[in-house]
Amino acid sequence: MSQALPDLLLEALIRAALIEDLGPSGDITTRLVIPPATRYRAKMNAREAGVVSGMQVAAIAFRLVDPTLTVTLHHPDGSACAPGDVLMEIEGLAASILSAEQVALNFAGSLSGIATLTAAYVAEIKGSPTRITCTRKTTPGLHLVEKAAIQNGGGFNHRFGLGDAILIKDNHIAAAGGIRPALEAACAGASHMMKIEVEVDTWTQLAELLEIRGADAVLLDNMDTPTLQQAVALVAGRLITEASGNMALSRIAEVAATGVNYISAGALTHSARTLDLGLDF
Amino acid sequence: MSQALPDLLLEALIRAALIEDLGPSGDITTRLVIPPATRYRAKMNAREAGVVSGMQVAAIAFRLVDPTLTVTLHHPDGSACAPGDVLMEIEGLAASILSAEQVALNFAGSLSGIATLTAAYVAEIKGSPTRITCTRKTTPGLHLVEKAAIQNGGGFNHRFGLGDAILIKDNHIAAAGGIRPALEAACAGASHMMKIEVEVDTWTQLAELLEIRGADAVLLDNMDTPTLQQAVALVAGRLITEASGNMALSRIAEVAATGVNYISAGALTHSARTLDLGLDF
Amino acid sequence: MSQALPDLLLEALIRAALIEDLGPSGDITTRLVIPPATRYRAKMNAREAGVVSGMQVAAIAFRLVDPTLTVTLHHPDGSACAPGDVLMEIEGLAASILSAEQVALNFAGSLSGIATLTAAYVAEIKGSPTRITCTRKTTPGLHLVEKAAIQNGGGFNHRFGLGDAILIKDNHIAAAGGIRPALEAACAGASHMMKIEVEVDTWTQLAELLEIRGADAVLLDNMDTPTLQQAVALVAGRLITEASGNMALSRIAEVAATGVNYISAGALTHSARTLDLGLDF
Amino acid sequence: MSQALPDLLLEALIRAALIEDLGPSGDITTRLVIPPATRYRAKMNAREAGVVSGMQVAAIAFRLVDPTLTVTLHHPDGSACAPGDVLMEIEGLAASILSAEQVALNFAGSLSGIATLTAAYVAEIKGSPTRITCTRKTTPGLHLVEKAAIQNGGGFNHRFGLGDAILIKDNHIAAAGGIRPALEAACAGASHMMKIEVEVDTWTQLAELLEIRGADAVLLDNMDTPTLQQAVALVAGRLITEASGNMALSRIAEVAATGVNYISAGALTHSARTLDLGLDF
Amino acid sequence: MSQALPDLLLEALIRAALIEDLGPSGDITTRLVIPPATRYRAKMNAREAGVVSGMQVAAIAFRLVDPTLTVTLHHPDGSACAPGDVLMEIEGLAASILSAEQVALNFAGSLSGIATLTAAYVAEIKGSPTRITCTRKTTPGLHLVEKAAIQNGGGFNHRFGLGDAILIKDNHIAAAGGIRPALEAACAGASHMMKIEVEVDTWTQLAELLEIRGADAVLLDNMDTPTLQQAVALVAGRLITEASGNMALSRIAEVAATGVNYISAGALTHSARTLDLGLDF
Amino acid sequence: MSQALPDLLLEALIRAALIEDLGPSGDITTRLVIPPATRYRAKMNAREAGVVSGMQVAAIAFRLVDPTLTVTLHHPDGSACAPGDVLMEIEGLAASILSAEQVALNFAGSLSGIATLTAAYVAEIKGSPTRITCTRKTTPGLHLVEKAAIQNGGGFNHRFGLGDAILIKDNHIAAAGGIRPALEAACAGASHMMKIEVEVDTWTQLAELLEIRGADAVLLDNMDTPTLQQAVALVAGRLITEASGNMALSRIAEVAATGVNYISAGALTHSARTLDLGLDF
Repeated sequence: MSQALPDLLLEALIRAALIEDLGPSGDITTRLVIPPATRYRAKMNAREAGVVSGMQVAAIAFRLVDPTLTVTLHHPDGSACAPGDVLMEIEGLAASILSAEQVALNFAGSLSGIATLTAAYVAEIKGSPTRITCTRKTTPGLHLVEKAAIQNGGGFNHRFGLGDAILIKDNHIAAAGGIRPALEAACAGASHMMKIEVEVDTWTQLAELLEIRGADAVLLDNMDTPTLQQAVALVAGRLITEASGNMALSRIAEVAATGVNYISAGALTHSARTLDLGLDF
Repeated sequence: MSQALPDLLLEALIRAALIEDLGPSGDITTRLVIPPATRYRAKMNAREAGVVSGMQVAAIAFRLVDPTLTVTLHHPDGSACAPGDVLMEIEGLAASILSAEQVALNFAGSLSGIATLTAAYVAEIKGSPTRITCTRKTTPGLHLVEKAAIQNGGGFNHRFGLGDAILIKDNHIAAAGGIRPALEAACAGASHMMKIEVEVDTWTQLAELLEIRGADAVLLDNMDTPTLQQAVALVAGRLITEASGNMALSRIAEVAATGVNYISAGALTHSARTLDLGLDF
Repeated sequence: MSQALPDLLLEALIRAALIEDLGPSGDITTRLVIPPATRYRAKMNAREAGVVSGMQVAAIAFRLVDPTLTVTLHHPDGSACAPGDVLMEIEGLAASILSAEQVALNFAGSLSGIATLTAAYVAEIKGSPTRITCTRKTTPGLHLVEKAAIQNGGGFNHRFGLGDAILIKDNHIAAAGGIRPALEAACAGASHMMKIEVEVDTWTQLAELLEIRGADAVLLDNMDTPTLQQAVALVAGRLITEASGNMALSRIAEVAATGVNYISAGALTHSARTLDLGLDF
Repeated sequence: MSQALPDLLLEALIRAALIEDLGPSGDITTRLVIPPATRYRAKMNAREAGVVSGMQVAAIAFRLVDPTLTVTLHHPDGSACAPGDVLMEIEGLAASILSAEQVALNFAGSLSGIATLTAAYVAEIKGSPTRITCTRKTTPGLHLVEKAAIQNGGGFNHRFGLGDAILIKDNHIAAAGGIRPALEAACAGASHMMKIEVEVDTWTQLAELLEIRGADAVLLDNMDTPTLQQAVALVAGRLITEASGNMALSRIAEVAATGVNYISAGALTHSARTLDLGLDF
Repeated sequence: MSQALPDLLLEALIRAALIEDLGPSGDITTRLVIPPATRYRAKMNAREAGVVSGMQVAAIAFRLVDPTLTVTLHHPDGSACAPGDVLMEIEGLAASILSAEQVALNFAGSLSGIATLTAAYVAEIKGSPTRITCTRKTTPGLHLVEKAAIQNGGGFNHRFGLGDAILIKDNHIAAAGGIRPALEAACAGASHMMKIEVEVDTWTQLAELLEIRGADAVLLDNMDTPTLQQAVALVAGRLITEASGNMALSRIAEVAATGVNYISAGALTHSARTLDLGLDF
Repeated sequence: MSQALPDLLLEALIRAALIEDLGPSGDITTRLVIPPATRYRAKMNAREAGVVSGMQVAAIAFRLVDPTLTVTLHHPDGSACAPGDVLMEIEGLAASILSAEQVALNFAGSLSGIATLTAAYVAEIKGSPTRITCTRKTTPGLHLVEKAAIQNGGGFNHRFGLGDAILIKDNHIAAAGGIRPALEAACAGASHMMKIEVEVDTWTQLAELLEIRGADAVLLDNMDTPTLQQAVALVAGRLITEASGNMALSRIAEVAATGVNYISAGALTHSARTLDLGLDF
């Protein structure tokens, strides 16, 4: 049962987004037009079905603009929503709510979109032990919240960046002079708390990898499903297996049927459609 | 003929994205596996056709990681690319190129996606004086580069945020007690260098607006095409007209045929698909 | 009826000013000399008449140094004050009040000085529809609060910076090869939410400008009053008119009498005298 | 012979001022109107006589916007200028020069104004050993450059903030229960590298102070000139003497004639008029 | 009786340390393993005797991670602790306490180590008027809190950095061409609120220094005890004397017996052992 | 063969340390005393034997203060030094070198101290396959450079923070209701690229752990050497073994003889003595 990230990790990026949107002088329209004492009870509504993410982020956005706003969360991150569901209510000064509205919605909509697409992948392989995971193809600077959205959708995270796990790819292998020297160099320097995965593109590479100690996982890159199946069989549980490359939703079920442990899809973050959310007053 | 933004405005967000991706300890795989003196001449290639954006951003990313890298730009932001086109070459230490690779690609791919979708909208109405414009439904924190991508695709920007122009929406009208008091309040306080647009949802509202002085533009929200056509005719050039709401690509041509001045589409930023780019060595 | 800016937009600059003044080790005198539990009820007093600005800023300064201080505002930003008026009371730990005192006073004094000078300009043309506006000659980094001080004094803001409106000046005209090409280039690329003003120094330039479409406003630069009068008559309401250059207080009434829409004066921000305020215990 | 501050200490505030002025999208006018390859050789000219300050700051502003600009300094900070003098030349892309122009001028104009007013104070007492010094009434956040401007004008700095020296004022004395307990508390905790000054408002306080050890300097606050003269005589060189309060330029000569060591004037920073500088192309 | 620094001066560095330790995704172990509603009452215990510092810092760390935690301080900074003493109690969500635990302990342990070592130096010369002071050999970036730890241990601070006092060292003397020109240059430019100390390495230098006016203090560098004694006698109270260089704890008593005013030891900050503290639940 | 971290990851903390030390006004002594054109060729010398770290950091410090300084590195990070060895030469303006000197030395001295102590641990078990690793007991904010110093000394890094690997400690086990539920919860949510280690304090816990799948490593906490030997034998290679708690240098050889894979020691970072380095001119 996953808990929320500390607000401390999220505030800087949300503050930056608000300042960007408030621009040189804040919400000038609201300042000129809305009577200062006007209060709203606003509802953030889902306008289509999906899986909710970004609620913590949206709540922080409202609080940063005005700590006196009261935010009541009805759908926590990771819950499913139906059209018309009230996800969150915000009560307080109209000017404050309107000033934070778009940033809150932009975050919540795009993160819920990621969670929803992830959930679709997960649903496609319901009952299978295979897990869905993201890649490093995230929106620059929004990595942290997009990784959380993947979890909200029932998926798993891959490494967080270049610094927390080792992934030996084709360029590394070429520069090191082969899988063996690359893997040996990695093992010689890696922390015992850091996992090592090796990307293989061919049958030969996979066979070579299986003869060497030190890897925890193998990334089977851009293989068709029959090849994947053979690869998984060859690995036979000696390494964690991850299938990657063109993992369209339509293909996920057959890939999972190969028994591969993880299916990673960049599409989860770079091609998710924004979930349609709105703020109603 | 548009020039580039000063790097000064872009560096902070690119630096933050790099630090996020480099994580606690930098590119550990490359550090352990690639011989330190290894040099690459890498090519950023288009793997599909589109309109390029994010090249300046990508070049800054490579430079921030290593000022000794040589970056040669072949396709400037705003140019069209075909599959296989070399957009940019980067020459220098392999470790530096690999450390910046993903951030550069994530920026360039997503921004080129926005430029490409914008270009598709623009192409749909080729020859028409109607202009395509974005909305405020941008990725939080990436506002600046996404607005540039819209321009690269041949589109126009809307206001940049809440602080640089006045857009009186339904909530403002309701709180102020009608279009007239809202518009009068805006005019009473607005800078003479700030434009005022009023959103109208109904025929009655439009008629009311046309009787009042002070607005520069009218946002015709969520109207079907015949209604739009009547509205544009009614306005008769007295205000800049903008059509918004459900402006799917398939519908753009008929909307433009109404003679509306601007068509704004949130989809340009929130629903663009990443353009497939790759770095090859 | 103007509302306050969100504190979010102001806190970073106030925090930086406090940290600058607190220096390497905080208020060492107070720390060594004042018994820790000492409490004050301090009054911020006006020592001369004027228009108050910077009260919100001062209140944030006290709160940032010590959130347990109680700040009671008696004169909101934009109100007039007489000598001896209590503008604000602050109650709480003496050490906290003394640590924030000078920064709060420096902000409030200089911003009230701007508001007071603006009010003097506004008073000079009482009853006239002409409006007083500031320029971009603001204190670097304090732009936001100085623009608010202008409003507090009854003036209007000009564009906020280089990025929110188009002002075509002599250099632009020279580089573009004339007013027409300059204005056409601006119109071809400008957002429909961005206004365009053109600076003219001569009668010929003004005549040329009036023959071209696309400008919203004309800046009549460094003209004597009779010339201004003729220029305003020539424009005849087709463009917003702004008079600029040597707009000393003594000359404002006669300039306004020309019927010009706006008078802009750099002096409002770069030459305002600090209003004398003090903190008494 | 004073050297420049390291750029490192100045860049953050100059960068912030540039980003503030460039606003959401940079210099849009220049971007749309000026042909990209246009180059300028611009001259920063003095339009009136004074003492120059802010040249280092202005040079950094141009470099931060575009490191390829060539800046040639003709009048270093601290030198006198006559109307028409060329202070600095900047050569390079027109777009870059125009983007930094106003921030560079705003800094240089206001800092040269402070240096010029300081030089007027210093000139008033030419030949006297008395020194002119500033106070803590500086522009929030611009403390560092304003202190340098004071030096450029021939003045001396007071303490830099609350943390680098001890100044026991009326409130401290009241809270501590008298000058003696206040001074003893300060001496008991102060670093041996930190000076201690005590503010006295009355003759009794001064007499009391002179009987106690530990102070380095005495601030003679708000005294008329005859009283100051008596006070300086009474101190008789045992403490550094500083006269403060209503130190208008017209009064400086007679105050210096009392033999006081330092005359401090808040007016140097809070009431200096901007020196008229311009950028010509 | 010294009061605490304002939290404002400490929060940025504590926040940075927390974000560093929370890493890309926060406390993943706690998030996955600990039931979300679990609450703790944790005690920070001393596991050895010493002098406490860093309690304010630790309390801020807990608050930054979770403002709803209740922190009760039992041993204020500067108090002595015995093994087993409860220094602080923290009550609230287990996840929050565990997320801040290590940063709080790392700060408190290392700062208490500095305070404890300082107290040992102070105890060594109990009853002597000689004071113990730190140097500039502090941990980069932690200067502020380490200086406070010195005070908590009963020591005194030296200058805070290069900018708040003048210390003329061997290189300055060599470059200026002797003590006299160096000191005269310093006096000619120094603020009257800034002290001047001169480092001397030899008897000749000391004699030269005593013939010149303008210094407040002399740093007697790397002298053996008999030489120090002679030097102190020669100075005869005309300057503050400071002994520096190899001031090991074992030697402090005999150095103090020379009557020197200050003994400065880099070891206080660069060689203090962490005090053993733990958090128990 | 490890390469350097990108400067990008290090600059922010080095810049902050320099700004802290330069204080409110930079190196005032040098500015007043040293003739501006004075140039130095300075040598950073080792005054005792050890292993060098912090050279990249020191070089960045000199460059940030003055990009025109020429820094020549003679002893790269990770190399051994003897007393008198020249580690680095810096040539350029004296004022620049003096302004950066202490920060460069403070970093280099403390990091070389960590590398040297690590090397002593490593030397103690020369020939053994056991590896020495650090803990999370690092200096707040300096985590990144201290981790690199551990590597420079021949040691290995543990996890970088709370976010990049899972370490289930006593509190987690208690809150989850035992090792099995804790480990199951961790496995259910962990990324496949994240390792899981479990801390055991007792024989019973170890036996329980060995019956459950999912852990990669076991931390044997605070065991005496015979118990450790039995524990390692019981694990029999099924998990990576790490010995922690009271791992004094004198005890390392016998601990390594148990065959444990890793020995982790907080002392490497929290108790290393600064290596004596100096800058000579």
